[in-house]
Amino acid sequence: MIYLDNAATTPPLESAFERAAREYRELYYNPSARYGGGFAVRKKIEEARKEILSVVADPALFELIFTSCGTEADNHAVFSCARRGNAVTSAGEHSAIERSFTELKNRGVEPRFAPLNLDGSVKIPELLSLVDDRTTLVSVVHVNNETGAINDIAEIARSVKRKNPRVIVHSDGVQAFGKLPFRLPKEVDLYSISAHKIGALKGTGALIKRKDLTLAPFIHGGGQEGGLRSGTENVLGILDFAYAAAERAACIADSYSRVAALRADMWDRLQKSEYHFFCASPEAGSPYILTLLAIDSRGEVLQRMLFDRGVCVGTGSACSSKERFSRVMRACGYAEEVLDGVLRVSFSPETTQEEVELAAREMISAAMEFKGKL
Amino acid sequence: MIYLDNAATTPPLESAFERAAREYRELYYNPSARYGGGFAVRKKIEEARKEILSVVADPALFELIFTSCGTEADNHAVFSCARRGNAVTSAGEHSAIERSFTELKNRGVEPRFAPLNLDGSVKIPELLSLVDDRTTLVSVVHVNNETGAINDIAEIARSVKRKNPRVIVHSDGVQAFGKLPFRLPKEVDLYSISAHKIGALKGTGALIKRKDLTLAPFIHGGGQEGGLRSGTENVLGILDFAYAAAERAACIADSYSRVAALRADMWDRLQKSEYHFFCASPEAGSPYILTLLAIDSRGEVLQRMLFDRGVCVGTGSACSSKERFSRVMRACGYAEEVLDGVLRVSFSPETTQEEVELAAREMISAAMEFKGKL
Repeated sequence: MIYLDNAATTPPLESAFERAAREYRELYYNPSARYGGGFAVRKKIEEARKEILSVVADPALFELIFTSCGTEADNHAVFSCARRGNAVTSAGEHSAIERSFTELKNRGVEPRFAPLNLDGSVKIPELLSLVDDRTTLVSVVHVNNETGAINDIAEIARSVKRKNPRVIVHSDGVQAFGKLPFRLPKEVDLYSISAHKIGALKGTGALIKRKDLTLAPFIHGGGQEGGLRSGTENVLGILDFAYAAAERAACIADSYSRVAALRADMWDRLQKSEYHFFCASPEAGSPYILTLLAIDSRGEVLQRMLFDRGVCVGTGSACSSKERFSRVMRACGYAEEVLDGVLRVSFSPETTQEEVELAAREMISAAMEFKGKL
Repeated sequence: MIYLDNAATTPPLESAFERAAREYRELYYNPSARYGGGFAVRKKIEEARKEILSVVADPALFELIFTSCGTEADNHAVFSCARRGNAVTSAGEHSAIERSFTELKNRGVEPRFAPLNLDGSVKIPELLSLVDDRTTLVSVVHVNNETGAINDIAEIARSVKRKNPRVIVHSDGVQAFGKLPFRLPKEVDLYSISAHKIGALKGTGALIKRKDLTLAPFIHGGGQEGGLRSGTENVLGILDFAYAAAERAACIADSYSRVAALRADMWDRLQKSEYHFFCASPEAGSPYILTLLAIDSRGEVLQRMLFDRGVCVGTGSACSSKERFSRVMRACGYAEEVLDGVLRVSFSPETTQEEVELAAREMISAAMEFKGKL
């Protein structure tokens, strides 16, 4: 199987998983237990926390709360920070943010959505115009998970805070973490990440927060995670996350360049083919995502034809694939007649040149076959 | 290591873990992906859901939502059902319920706590007297995690509903699931369970709910778990939970009798010793928990001495071990002078007679040594 749906989820990095599973077999104690076994697990968790945080942030300024997924981290940020007035986000958010903002209405907070550029990035002047004295939270995705467009969250955070310094700025960094060489600027207060997008297990995420920011707890109970997220820690998932993050961080710049070359090569092959593919990803976007519109085709049908041929690609965000058209791609401004043809090819550091060549060939041939049948 | 802290957490059941890990290596796809790989994972999750639900409930009446832990399941039940008026619980709850009820005050709902009998079970007449026309939720733990006392939740639920049929009844079944041979009565609307208490991984729990009960979502996003709990599913944790639950269910009655004999034997040995141990667990409680008061001793010191001698026991709920005295044991009515000596011995179906003999010997010798040093 040539797996090119890495923005949806990733196969386990075997080295990280083996190590975490081996350690977990010994360190199964409850991290809250007050004897040697508990202390040993607690120490491992704290090492993992440092390891993951250091990939993206200065541990002098930021700290990290483990969550069960990126979605939980997003929910925690939104519901803890947007408690009155209004909250501003973009029309290009993952459903974890979009649905949380919609829920804010039920809690007496007005959600505001800024429009997108064609590439999926947020229109910054329009976003800023939505921020006012009553704004409590601004949340903008770092890398758009459907197009790969990168929002300059440092610049956005600074501009927002110039307008209203009391606003909390959050960013969903799930598609950026471990992929973009990037340090979290001090103006971003909260940042969500997820383990299963970088080769670690599903079931672990984290919310990175500025140390001096006070959050309300999201889950109440035994007081784990500084009282903000109770529940016995997912020890295996946390260790695996740390080992995968360390592997990714060690070659983040190299992987970035190599994947950028693979993406360019794939686009070159598709562009030169007989079939009409349109590239919906910006040149300057994340190299890990190449979103295409297969004109006059149906992405979902192509996706299944490709799976049968041993190639896995996406059609948009796997989490919200119940609507016919992608909400985000529609917000970019595309007409419905092309939205049927969305295909998202997403790479990993393990993707090879050979896989790209084979996948491009199959994509072209499947699209031609689909066209021939019309 | 003789591990007798199974009420805090359990070592991984190797057979279940191996099987789940082997399958996950192939089935790493996103369960929401709309191609063969995604469908295969989705199918596995649905099989796991049925397997776990069938251990304790009639699938015609109940359904199951996967959560990240028992604490999340408890929080979901409380915050979804107690939205106005008052909510009634016992003074013997796990901190997941106790802290959630305390938080209700901030949300305009009055929490009410019913007192306990000396064995840790709730005083039913007092509980019922707290239920009135404005009560929206009653939550009573099934097996008290500090004493092993069993609350008759079927009878409690029926009595509560006779008094106010609109009340939702929840029970935290974390220490009962996979251990007590028990079927969920139709009067109990919601029931929380946890994977890591039965030999499966930390990071997975579930909320079992009556099918016709409408809950508010707890985490908003991609719409997983029927829209009630968004976030990419913890596939490895879910499969492991199902395989461990099936193993436990297959011999639940046999394990129950065997563990009951082990508990009786351990108490017999301790009772006959030179040291003064007091048994705080009721005879008719869960056989998996034997809670002792080591009179004139300090549980925490004994616990560490025992760990150094290769025996792991608890001192109370591992999740809330920050206070000097156990909130629940205090609510049972014990005086502070004996509460320093709490030791909780908790068994698993894997516990052997030999381990019980060795552990009892070490417990007596550690307690005597501690006493000699005074």
